[in-house]
Amino acid sequence: MIKLSARPYKLVSREYQKQDTVVDVAGVLIGGDSFQVIAGPCAVESREQLFTIAQEVKKAGATILRGGAYKPRTSPYSFQGLEEEGLKLLAEVRKELGLPIVTELLDIRDLDLVASHTDIIQIGARNMQNYSLLREAACTGKPIMLKRGLAATLEEWLAAAEYILQEGNNQVVLCERGIRTFENYTRNTPDLAGVAAVRVLSHLPVIIDPSHGSGRWFLVTPLARAAYALGAHGVMIEVHQHPSEALSDGEQSITPARFSRLMAQLSRMKSAFAPGERINLENMLE
Amino acid sequence: MIKLSARPYKLVSREYQKQDTVVDVAGVLIGGDSFQVIAGPCAVESREQLFTIAQEVKKAGATILRGGAYKPRTSPYSFQGLEEEGLKLLAEVRKELGLPIVTELLDIRDLDLVASHTDIIQIGARNMQNYSLLREAACTGKPIMLKRGLAATLEEWLAAAEYILQEGNNQVVLCERGIRTFENYTRNTPDLAGVAAVRVLSHLPVIIDPSHGSGRWFLVTPLARAAYALGAHGVMIEVHQHPSEALSDGEQSITPARFSRLMAQLSRMKSAFAPGERINLENMLE
Amino acid sequence: MIKLSARPYKLVSREYQKQDTVVDVAGVLIGGDSFQVIAGPCAVESREQLFTIAQEVKKAGATILRGGAYKPRTSPYSFQGLEEEGLKLLAEVRKELGLPIVTELLDIRDLDLVASHTDIIQIGARNMQNYSLLREAACTGKPIMLKRGLAATLEEWLAAAEYILQEGNNQVVLCERGIRTFENYTRNTPDLAGVAAVRVLSHLPVIIDPSHGSGRWFLVTPLARAAYALGAHGVMIEVHQHPSEALSDGEQSITPARFSRLMAQLSRMKSAFAPGERINLENMLE
Amino acid sequence: MIKLSARPYKLVSREYQKQDTVVDVAGVLIGGDSFQVIAGPCAVESREQLFTIAQEVKKAGATILRGGAYKPRTSPYSFQGLEEEGLKLLAEVRKELGLPIVTELLDIRDLDLVASHTDIIQIGARNMQNYSLLREAACTGKPIMLKRGLAATLEEWLAAAEYILQEGNNQVVLCERGIRTFENYTRNTPDLAGVAAVRVLSHLPVIIDPSHGSGRWFLVTPLARAAYALGAHGVMIEVHQHPSEALSDGEQSITPARFSRLMAQLSRMKSAFAPGERINLENMLE
Repeated sequence: MIKLSARPYKLVSREYQKQDTVVDVAGVLIGGDSFQVIAGPCAVESREQLFTIAQEVKKAGATILRGGAYKPRTSPYSFQGLEEEGLKLLAEVRKELGLPIVTELLDIRDLDLVASHTDIIQIGARNMQNYSLLREAACTGKPIMLKRGLAATLEEWLAAAEYILQEGNNQVVLCERGIRTFENYTRNTPDLAGVAAVRVLSHLPVIIDPSHGSGRWFLVTPLARAAYALGAHGVMIEVHQHPSEALSDGEQSITPARFSRLMAQLSRMKSAFAPGERINLENMLE
Repeated sequence: MIKLSARPYKLVSREYQKQDTVVDVAGVLIGGDSFQVIAGPCAVESREQLFTIAQEVKKAGATILRGGAYKPRTSPYSFQGLEEEGLKLLAEVRKELGLPIVTELLDIRDLDLVASHTDIIQIGARNMQNYSLLREAACTGKPIMLKRGLAATLEEWLAAAEYILQEGNNQVVLCERGIRTFENYTRNTPDLAGVAAVRVLSHLPVIIDPSHGSGRWFLVTPLARAAYALGAHGVMIEVHQHPSEALSDGEQSITPARFSRLMAQLSRMKSAFAPGERINLENMLE
Repeated sequence: MIKLSARPYKLVSREYQKQDTVVDVAGVLIGGDSFQVIAGPCAVESREQLFTIAQEVKKAGATILRGGAYKPRTSPYSFQGLEEEGLKLLAEVRKELGLPIVTELLDIRDLDLVASHTDIIQIGARNMQNYSLLREAACTGKPIMLKRGLAATLEEWLAAAEYILQEGNNQVVLCERGIRTFENYTRNTPDLAGVAAVRVLSHLPVIIDPSHGSGRWFLVTPLARAAYALGAHGVMIEVHQHPSEALSDGEQSITPARFSRLMAQLSRMKSAFAPGERINLENMLE
Repeated sequence: MIKLSARPYKLVSREYQKQDTVVDVAGVLIGGDSFQVIAGPCAVESREQLFTIAQEVKKAGATILRGGAYKPRTSPYSFQGLEEEGLKLLAEVRKELGLPIVTELLDIRDLDLVASHTDIIQIGARNMQNYSLLREAACTGKPIMLKRGLAATLEEWLAAAEYILQEGNNQVVLCERGIRTFENYTRNTPDLAGVAAVRVLSHLPVIIDPSHGSGRWFLVTPLARAAYALGAHGVMIEVHQHPSEALSDGEQSITPARFSRLMAQLSRMKSAFAPGERINLENMLE
């Protein structure tokens, strides 16, 4: 077992708990040998946009729907999301299609509203160290998806998760979404080695967001396949029917057709691995 | 004038306002040709600790007292600050010594409490893109010190300030506190070139925190002198009478004696510059 | 097709040549739909060490043998390689086992010696912008494996390859070996998104070195699988029969037994993809 | 004294030698309490260009002339320098104006030629870990200016210098020229904290190159002043009479008029410090 001295976390560590934690998102299990594909638009833009995409990704095999209602934007002049209206649309589509929802919580004052409309609360990269937000979200008892801050070390990321587990909520999914490096052909640098390392350091499930990770739609498919082969517990992918018209992040969104082809590839890759082999840690650490 | 296309800010730019903004912190002016030295302990630990340090730094010439009451810590197991008790001690020392106070706001729910005890509200690096916190802090009308996120580009930093100015509050002091790079002999890499660049891009005053910037007490003095010569509008320095016993950040705190010698050096450096010469932008851009 | 303005390269670009370049390393083809596994010790330490590892990796399915004779070491006090003696051992094992060899060229004065003992000349990360070395190596007509500098952008990496193609030698294999970032749990951060991006930008084959990329033996297997799924043209892996006794880089070397299991997994993954599907660029760019 | 365990260097350390090394460049002393200003064009372009700039910088107070004859360029299509013709022009101007010369050595095969035309051999950032080049350059006995690699840690930089001292040549000047970070408004991020740290770790003199460090002419003056106040032993500055027409790096070159004003400011700053105070290490480490 790998040792780190003076680590800023305890409950999230493999030493503390050997077996993988499995997070239950309204019946969809993240963790262990499963590989869940979360998909949907970056931002909820309209009822029609949301329903169209939701139907497409469900048909292709996605098991959770993503969609931003509150959007943290670098510029105050950019589209900030439909806010409560967006949450309501997400709740509608959940009811109609039976897809669990993940959406981001930005402001502690929206906690009740967001928690009542989502099946797993997303904490975005910008808020990874917003500790009061983490603590309050934890106290809802809802599952939480904790994105890695774009300059957070693995240790800081796990320590942020520790704030959640300290509140008695162990339903945490880690999400790698790319770190900031000198390379700027890609928007960020998805740290796949870090994801594999986190699986050794912690029992929490960890997924990859290749859309934010790369910022380029044509890199999403190869990276999603790589995430599967690496042993991640899932991916979160931005899909848009008209990427060039998306109100945010169109450059990194793939079309439903392309998403569908990716799902077929992922499905075929499953047969390459014996049960448990893809996520085998004993193999890694024997 | 330097042009950036499609910038995510407007009100904070030099194009929008040519002359330097001067921020008034209870009578202490930050901006223009002045160089203000903010000093004090990383965290308020006790009445005695705070008063001792405050008296020392005031005697040496500091014009604003720093001290954390709410401490954002990577580990949930680290000292989190005295919280409201810390704020009260800061208010006491302000009253007794007449030194304006800067302390950090972490949680939007503490806004009124913090705002009523401080002369300038500090937004820490972890919260630079916590936009709801920025907006609410802005609405208090209090001056705000906005620290640069440890992986924020200059553009993102200025865009975060734009969120504040959009609320009608232009009393913003930018504070460079080191960015995260591959170099880890120093805790962070203080970006002095970025500070000079920000002075060209924006009319807001900008100061440097060499304590967090370097994480090493013996680098604080040379970096503070460099900040002065560079044309920054001030520095913020952690001072502790017993650095090795500090409850946080002792490694980067200097003693009152060393602080006093630094102040003498800064004072002598003033005579090297004609009025306005140190901060001369026309000189830079003619 | 992706456009970059004022790029510092031309011959290596996809615009210049649409079809993938296939590099012939003594009959082993790198590029197109194949996936070659290069394996062997970090450094040649002795005849017995080299032959034992070479036999093991050949048996498991590796198609090219790696082994350093000249080792660029950060410290002048570290083991610098067996030099000419190491080259001779590599030539012996090549003759006996029929495995092509890759070894690093460090000094332009060793060019003839190295070129006569290797099937593909490795240019290490430290020398990626040693342009005279690149040009002279190019002129031997031998295939060249060009490792990415640890802080080189994709553009700089491709521009370095351009120096080789300019000399009339297009037999260049690019090798991603991890970039330097703030994260230091891993030795480097293997940039898988960058590898996928390079396949779009250039017709040259590109492989991944997960050993140097991560610096941790237990991350090598998941990363090698990810490299396959991503669409890379191969991997280069450090194998040692007694990693803890290796004279260099033991921490990132895997045992022959583990290597053999990885090879079985890679073999099974092939069946998941239709011919050409794994490396399909039209799919990415349609 | 600061301790680092298992450091990859010894001869360059402060523990090995307490007093500052002073490097003698044809009578100009770098190290100790002096502050030398090296200036000149990025590349030697013509006799007239070189003589004009040389006369201007000498008049303003520069003590060493810089000028590249061999230029390492990212793109093979960029101007590569006048090569031997450039060296001859440098030798001419040295003879006529009595200014010592610094120019870069790129290729080990040019060693004798370069060494016979320069007073201090520059090893560029791209070649910091080109160990054979370092060793051969060391053996000439000439002073060497070792630029920091753009992703080199302080430890790696000092270890590279150790390769030179191991050959019996201790006449090494370290030159910080900016490290590569995520920030790209500036070409690089000059690491001033690293320079102060190196002064603690090593007895070798260290200077700063604010031209490459920032890549922006309007940041050169403030950064050069900061370098002085920090306690660096000098700066190296690119000067061009017509920056917009320079064959390389015009964006980071300042005019002779601006250079002259900077020299006046540096001269006035001297009076702020008592002898030895600016570079006082005892003060830092007591």
